[in-house]
Amino acid sequence: MNMKNTNILYQHGTLALLVPGLLTGTLKMKNLLSHGDTGIGTGEGLDGELIILNGIAYQADSFGKVNPISSEFTVPFANIHYADYKKLTTIANASPADLAKAALQGKPNSNNFFSVLVKGTFSYMKTRAVAKSERPFSTLAETAKNQSVFETKNVAGTLLSYYSPSLFHGAAVAGYHSHFLASDHSIGGHVLDFKIDQGTLSLQQFDTLEQHLPIDNEEFNAHDFSKDDIANTISQAE
Amino acid sequence: MNMKNTNILYQHGTLALLVPGLLTGTLKMKNLLSHGDTGIGTGEGLDGELIILNGIAYQADSFGKVNPISSEFTVPFANIHYADYKKLTTIANASPADLAKAALQGKPNSNNFFSVLVKGTFSYMKTRAVAKSERPFSTLAETAKNQSVFETKNVAGTLLSYYSPSLFHGAAVAGYHSHFLASDHSIGGHVLDFKIDQGTLSLQQFDTLEQHLPIDNEEFNAHDFSKDDIANTISQAE
Repeated sequence: MNMKNTNILYQHGTLALLVPGLLTGTLKMKNLLSHGDTGIGTGEGLDGELIILNGIAYQADSFGKVNPISSEFTVPFANIHYADYKKLTTIANASPADLAKAALQGKPNSNNFFSVLVKGTFSYMKTRAVAKSERPFSTLAETAKNQSVFETKNVAGTLLSYYSPSLFHGAAVAGYHSHFLASDHSIGGHVLDFKIDQGTLSLQQFDTLEQHLPIDNEEFNAHDFSKDDIANTISQAE
Repeated sequence: MNMKNTNILYQHGTLALLVPGLLTGTLKMKNLLSHGDTGIGTGEGLDGELIILNGIAYQADSFGKVNPISSEFTVPFANIHYADYKKLTTIANASPADLAKAALQGKPNSNNFFSVLVKGTFSYMKTRAVAKSERPFSTLAETAKNQSVFETKNVAGTLLSYYSPSLFHGAAVAGYHSHFLASDHSIGGHVLDFKIDQGTLSLQQFDTLEQHLPIDNEEFNAHDFSKDDIANTISQAE
């Protein structure tokens, strides 16, 4: 429906869904890809960390491998949009805090959704990838314990970040949510820490969050979210 | 962009914006109407209570009048969608609680967005309409004090309700948010209480909230929402 509207950030599911363990894949990758060419997400059962670049979806799994993803692969949660980044600046020797500061040059605003993209070389990269869990799914806090952490030095690649305003914490995670993919696919995953060596920093501002919910999923429909500690669990897990 | 996708609830602005008094109209009615034919909202400075039915927008003002709205009229907050209601049942002698119970027959879910429409006669209707405030705008709590309350008996009309899941409280108001318009335009506004005499109850389920933010509004961009008591203020005002 949205014909490459680059002002829209599409989100399937919410992070709140994952908190109690509603980890069923409720959207196929081919359907997700009809809403953009750039994104992040996870598979059913928290099956790895996904990154979508130039319309191609990759999975960083808990074994440290980067895998192609089939069009039938399902996701419980994902963000996707059509890339239309504006180059802001080159950036060097930058921590996550330095990057956040540099992104402010593009006058994004903490009350709005936007995306930050860094292509370049990273002197340090630390990621994690959750291992797929099987039914019956446990809570996010329990499931996410079964993860692998990866570290490397001097790697070229792409860091893709989404920034969400605090009002939407629960639907998304307030602040930055970042995934990484090495150019040679030697490392990928949910970003825990990094140091940029040299890179280009680009930004894309959205004016709309298109929040899609899995209304045909009975577990979701039946779940009482009022007892979940959504905000804290997401802050800790993401 | 969304060509009459009846699964989408479009929202311009958030209720959180109104809390600190960001009451500038940031979308013209003609643009809002490009996203649906049925909706609710308010004007700049909380200029009355809006209801959109069959593609026509009306304003219930604080003087008790129902006015047509020009295409240049601006809104700080509104919900709109393309009507595709499924008739559920007839309903009689029903309070707000009875209506909420009856709507469950359509198996909407409290974790999803949906809309409820009642057309019929109401043995009692109590509405309010806020009076437009001028710049500099005060907070929602202060501005909303300057409102008129209207009551009537035995009136025919349309009750339009949107239900939002609690996860989105702040963006919207959790639970039902209802506006009313009498068939003869004798009364309208934000619904405080009612008793349905006889009516038909219809429901429309959404799978997507299309949340549009006023990213070009400098006051919004500059505002620090972290000090606002968003959740409680909305619960009290709405």
